[in-house]
Amino acid sequence: MKATVYEGNKTFSVIEKSIEEPAAGEVRIKVAFVGICGTDVHVYHGNMDKRVQIPQTIGHEMSGVIDAVGAEVKDIAVGDKVVVRPLDDRLQQESDKGISHICEKLKFIGVDTPGAMQQYWNVPAFTIHKLKAETDLKLAAMTEPLAVACHDVRMSELKKGETAVVLGGGPIGLLIAMVATLKGAQVIISEVNEARVAIAREFGFTVVNPAQEDIIAYVQEVTAGRKADVVFEVAGVQPSVDVMTKLAGIRSRVVMVAIHAQPKSVNLFDFFWKELKLIGARVYEKEDYEEAISLITSNTLGFEKLISEVRPLSAIQEAFEAIDNNPAGIKTLLDCQ
Amino acid sequence: MKATVYEGNKTFSVIEKSIEEPAAGEVRIKVAFVGICGTDVHVYHGNMDKRVQIPQTIGHEMSGVIDAVGAEVKDIAVGDKVVVRPLDDRLQQESDKGISHICEKLKFIGVDTPGAMQQYWNVPAFTIHKLKAETDLKLAAMTEPLAVACHDVRMSELKKGETAVVLGGGPIGLLIAMVATLKGAQVIISEVNEARVAIAREFGFTVVNPAQEDIIAYVQEVTAGRKADVVFEVAGVQPSVDVMTKLAGIRSRVVMVAIHAQPKSVNLFDFFWKELKLIGARVYEKEDYEEAISLITSNTLGFEKLISEVRPLSAIQEAFEAIDNNPAGIKTLLDCQ
Ligand SMILES: NC(=O)c1ccc[n+]([C@@H]2O[C@H](COP(=O)([O-])OP(=O)(O)OC[C@H]3O[C@@H](n4cnc5c(N)ncnc54)[C@H](O)[C@@H]3O)[C@@H](O)[C@H]2O)c1
Ligand SMILES: NC(=O)c1ccc[n+]([C@@H]2O[C@H](COP(=O)([O-])OP(=O)(O)OC[C@H]3O[C@@H](n4cnc5c(N)ncnc54)[C@H](O)[C@@H]3O)[C@@H](O)[C@H]2O)c1
Ligand SMILES: [Zn+2]
Ligand SMILES: [Zn+2]
Repeated sequence: MKATVYEGNKTFSVIEKSIEEPAAGEVRIKVAFVGICGTDVHVYHGNMDKRVQIPQTIGHEMSGVIDAVGAEVKDIAVGDKVVVRPLDDRLQQESDKGISHICEKLKFIGVDTPGAMQQYWNVPAFTIHKLKAETDLKLAAMTEPLAVACHDVRMSELKKGETAVVLGGGPIGLLIAMVATLKGAQVIISEVNEARVAIAREFGFTVVNPAQEDIIAYVQEVTAGRKADVVFEVAGVQPSVDVMTKLAGIRSRVVMVAIHAQPKSVNLFDFFWKELKLIGARVYEKEDYEEAISLITSNTLGFEKLISEVRPLSAIQEAFEAIDNNPAGIKTLLDCQ
Repeated sequence: MKATVYEGNKTFSVIEKSIEEPAAGEVRIKVAFVGICGTDVHVYHGNMDKRVQIPQTIGHEMSGVIDAVGAEVKDIAVGDKVVVRPLDDRLQQESDKGISHICEKLKFIGVDTPGAMQQYWNVPAFTIHKLKAETDLKLAAMTEPLAVACHDVRMSELKKGETAVVLGGGPIGLLIAMVATLKGAQVIISEVNEARVAIAREFGFTVVNPAQEDIIAYVQEVTAGRKADVVFEVAGVQPSVDVMTKLAGIRSRVVMVAIHAQPKSVNLFDFFWKELKLIGARVYEKEDYEEAISLITSNTLGFEKLISEVRPLSAIQEAFEAIDNNPAGIKTLLDCQ
């Protein structure tokens, strides 16, 4: 089989490897599609060389078909269409309070352990979520980022009729906007990259470019002074942190989805004055995966429009280079079949 | 009657004034005791001269007895022992979503409008909470800050058996610690001022001075790695903001009680990584006042130990000067009788 390996120094190699039998408690997946995520791009750029054990096969957004089942595995059969929830929580401790998806010693599969960018992939059976026979495997490769969005919206307790502002119209921001719309919210996306503004508008979203328009005044006006009920911070930059507390109305919720590697200046007075809540949200729980799978299977949202490119697994190097040269692209998939 | 007036320039004057009849919808209170709050000290220092209309009678932590009742006032009678919830929410708007206690156009009585530091005080009847006949009026003057603490603990959803860390052992921090203890939480106070450390220890609290001991290691150890379930930020300084996200365990809540006039550097990564919640909390709602009154009336907590000094109303200038010279003092009361 073909496998790809991140070698450090912005380089992937494609190698031939023998197909391994799944150990007890594991399954072997014939990988169909793997999405390239912002995290994978960080790995490619060398930003995560301390965490990733080079050489390493990466990738965690995927779909596939069960190819073999190890001993002691129940309720999973060869031929099942599946996705992997890439969270290895086996080192969970008492002090994690049962909150397993972000337990202190969590291993993120595809970063901390070998990932999906290969033709066959062995994973623990507990990471498997089964798809319906009719689920499209190309779309299903977007289950993982969609589950992030489902988790974020669930954590926000967004209700029908509320106004949600999504700061950042990248892949995660767009998916949050889609899920928030489904919940019956009025959604406004804030995005500075004009190519991405255009993409978000193609989805039918209301988009404001805060570099060109006063987004605080805009939200104030369309909500008759009520402002946003929920703000999703998905841009990860100081200007979006500055604006998030201004866009939020009285007792509104601000969901922190973006990964801010450095501390940021935050207006804590606004949190006190308006009794705002800041809600940190990381990855997903089982129910978010189930919700994402059901949205992917019904596909009423037009997820295919998020796929900018599909390239063969063997073209992985070109795929990452192309992403660097096209910051407007939303989702690149690698075809592993 | 005697009234005191803030004149600007760190100066209070004591004047003779005629007693006014309460207007329709108002009551006249014969003021018993008035507490001096951090906000009053800010006024005295001139920090709020833009907001306070000089000359102004200030004061919002008080107790008293109904002396006269205006037209249209129901269920309040001369002789009733009362406290005032100093929130004038009459300019509430649709966009406040019914959250009246922090409505956009809220007037804080005793800052934005005349306050309690006088012998007789006319206030809208809707601000009145009645006390029991047996309630001690000296202790009742602490209803307002205690209601702040009740509100903060209620917003934190603190549960029995949880660990709460209170950053800052000033009057508000101590009251939060008392209420949190009543809820059955394990409470740890962090305080840098040694005189205040000593006071908090007299109340029987576990106190850590973070300038002398590694509070993160301490909390980590006493909770067997679970860390705090709730952190109350009541110190209002950058070091406490730095430590608050470190003390919080997985999915813990951080309650922002302190008023941070300037934006602070906040570790947003910790909020994302541990799915922390930041909960802004401001003043109180009706039910917090009722809870505070019931705690004051039963007084199982020994509130009298919070009273550092009682001075006659006419000694207001000396009272404020003494507070500046004794940063360890907890609560000074003015006796208006
Ligand atoms: N919470 C989680 O578990 C989780 C999971 C996946 C990704 N993330 C994080 O979510 C964030 C978004 O992920 P993504 O893949 O969509 O990233 P992305 O970088 O593709 O998207 C961010 C978008 O924000 C836009 N932006 C920049 N400055 C802006 C501003 N001032 N106002 C409005 N928009 C602005 C950018 O143009 C970009 O389109 C990242 O920080 C990522 O690390 C978190
Ligand atoms: N949310 C509200 O409605 C509300 C109501 C009243 C007061 N407040 C605010 O609450 C805060 C506390 O009020 P207070 O009257 O108790 O104030 P205070 O200034 O008397 O108490 C703050 C305490 O924090 C201590 N401190 C300073 N640095 C510290 C550190 N690094 N670690 C631990 N402790 C430290 C100080 O020594 C002091 O004792 C203030 O910011 C005040 O404005 C808010
Ligand atoms: Zn991802
Ligand atoms: Zn006060």
